[in-house]
Amino acid sequence: MSDRILLAHGSGGVLSHELIRDVFARHFDNSILNAMNDAALLPDIGTGQLAFTTDSYVVQPLFFPGGDIGELAICGTVNDLAVAGAQPRYLSSGFILEEGLSLETLERVVCSMAETAHTAGVQIVTGDTKVVNHGAADGLFINTAGIGVVPPGLKLGPQYLQPGDVILINGTVGDHGLAVMLQREGLAFDSPLESDTAPLNKLISTLLEAVPGKVHCMRDATRGGLATVLNEWTAAGIGIEIEETQVPVKEAVNAACEFLGLDPLYAANEGKVVIAIDRDAAETALATLQSHPLGTEAAIIGKVTGEHIGRVVLHTPYGARRIISMLTGAQLPRIC
Amino acid sequence: MSDRILLAHGSGGVLSHELIRDVFARHFDNSILNAMNDAALLPDIGTGQLAFTTDSYVVQPLFFPGGDIGELAICGTVNDLAVAGAQPRYLSSGFILEEGLSLETLERVVCSMAETAHTAGVQIVTGDTKVVNHGAADGLFINTAGIGVVPPGLKLGPQYLQPGDVILINGTVGDHGLAVMLQREGLAFDSPLESDTAPLNKLISTLLEAVPGKVHCMRDATRGGLATVLNEWTAAGIGIEIEETQVPVKEAVNAACEFLGLDPLYAANEGKVVIAIDRDAAETALATLQSHPLGTEAAIIGKVTGEHIGRVVLHTPYGARRIISMLTGAQLPRIC
Repeated sequence: MSDRILLAHGSGGVLSHELIRDVFARHFDNSILNAMNDAALLPDIGTGQLAFTTDSYVVQPLFFPGGDIGELAICGTVNDLAVAGAQPRYLSSGFILEEGLSLETLERVVCSMAETAHTAGVQIVTGDTKVVNHGAADGLFINTAGIGVVPPGLKLGPQYLQPGDVILINGTVGDHGLAVMLQREGLAFDSPLESDTAPLNKLISTLLEAVPGKVHCMRDATRGGLATVLNEWTAAGIGIEIEETQVPVKEAVNAACEFLGLDPLYAANEGKVVIAIDRDAAETALATLQSHPLGTEAAIIGKVTGEHIGRVVLHTPYGARRIISMLTGAQLPRIC
Repeated sequence: MSDRILLAHGSGGVLSHELIRDVFARHFDNSILNAMNDAALLPDIGTGQLAFTTDSYVVQPLFFPGGDIGELAICGTVNDLAVAGAQPRYLSSGFILEEGLSLETLERVVCSMAETAHTAGVQIVTGDTKVVNHGAADGLFINTAGIGVVPPGLKLGPQYLQPGDVILINGTVGDHGLAVMLQREGLAFDSPLESDTAPLNKLISTLLEAVPGKVHCMRDATRGGLATVLNEWTAAGIGIEIEETQVPVKEAVNAACEFLGLDPLYAANEGKVVIAIDRDAAETALATLQSHPLGTEAAIIGKVTGEHIGRVVLHTPYGARRIISMLTGAQLPRIC
């Protein structure tokens, strides 16, 4: 077998079959995938509503402190299902490979996907590989789509946001965005910063069990960061107030943001969920999050209000108020 | 709005939201997508087994005689579900756009996807857009994943192939591969060749109703063509015999193949299904296919045998026998 990806690996012929057998099937190994049908046939998913989502991953570089494109490709899709209240179950994976990519790189990414899928408790059951000529893609792009099951009766979404709801986050913001940026710019060598990439489904199911019926809306704060999630929520006809001093930000993220002229509120996260919850359950929710390894730095950061509808207002430590609007430019391209 | 794709269209900010609203949501318009959740929540799918598949599409050029990348992105995934016996229902779409792509091109592709989805009776319910810097991708790549439902009791797959089964195809081979190649090489101007890109789910459900329990295995003959499908089937422990004169090939495809040094048996199709069926139902199946607009040139092309296990043998018009093996090189890169 060549140690580089050739166009023939995408031909559907002998090399395609070898690549599937020796790399994808070997690491993703499960009985549904191994049947190698045109479509995976899934076991009975039981009661509950189906949830379905997709994301493509184009992060550059492919490997960064705290993660890689493979881990990201599992976590991003798992987290999109989890914040919709779904228990993630099955993933597809579509690879677009650039001719000349080293097989070793591909295998590292595939191993990382397999490990992360195992951690999250999901199976990669169907896939596809295309190869494009050298120069027509940047190494490796991945798409994953995911299927999950929402337990009967669970109602989540911006339409359930109510004035008085408390807003929580499970930890520090901006870690992923800054870790990738510093690595890309060659500034990572003396930085302690690591991406927060993690599958949040177990944290979220623990929370939903601890405060049944109390969570009104959740979203993972990926591209566009915390500020973007909160702005999207205000479209449901509410206002949001955030206490700047309550938003957890690592010292190293703050320093890197100052250096690069970025705002941590807009920087991408890959292991952070923003939660709006009934006021009377906020303290229990906070304690639940803090007792989970992915929520040790969880914090209450603000609240939903019936005032300044459609706007996110930040209270600064100096008593000033600042409107946090939707991101208008491209702060951090190819961050996920 | 800019008339070109900018990096900011992939930032998750204002331009991302405008692109979703003005292009994707406008054309894909349906109530599930319009809810704009992190994950689409699907209606009850009723009884039957879930089928799940994915494909990425990297065809070059984006527009070719008889189709385009958008039509292909729907048909390829719909057909992978249909040949597994599933009724295709819901699709995801993930776009990777190159900075600088014209919005007009994107919108043409999106319109084509919407039209084809309508024809096939599927809904695009969730999606994602990433933008990479100029030069990091070739215009536009699409991934679609699809969910379908297999009616209870339907059993299809290579494991059900039996010696004596008759093999049919719904029309001429190689149309897609050669139409794309001629367009790419600038040779299309005086060719009548068009891609056969089409959603096959309605043809297939008509066939399954006409000969219940008789179809043993189906596959769409895409990358690697008819020869690859037949070779994959022989791995189930059977042999296959094909009559060369019975395989429908357009005169223009034969001529183009001779000119380019290609073999139509390995050339890609995007609207062709290969069917193995119980011998006693073959004539009814043939008549059913021929009475459908996508099967007017359907033909019986060979049979499954208990001899030469693992091999596909072609009988030539001169009485010779030739082994048709798995494709070993990359005959036609970026054909889908």
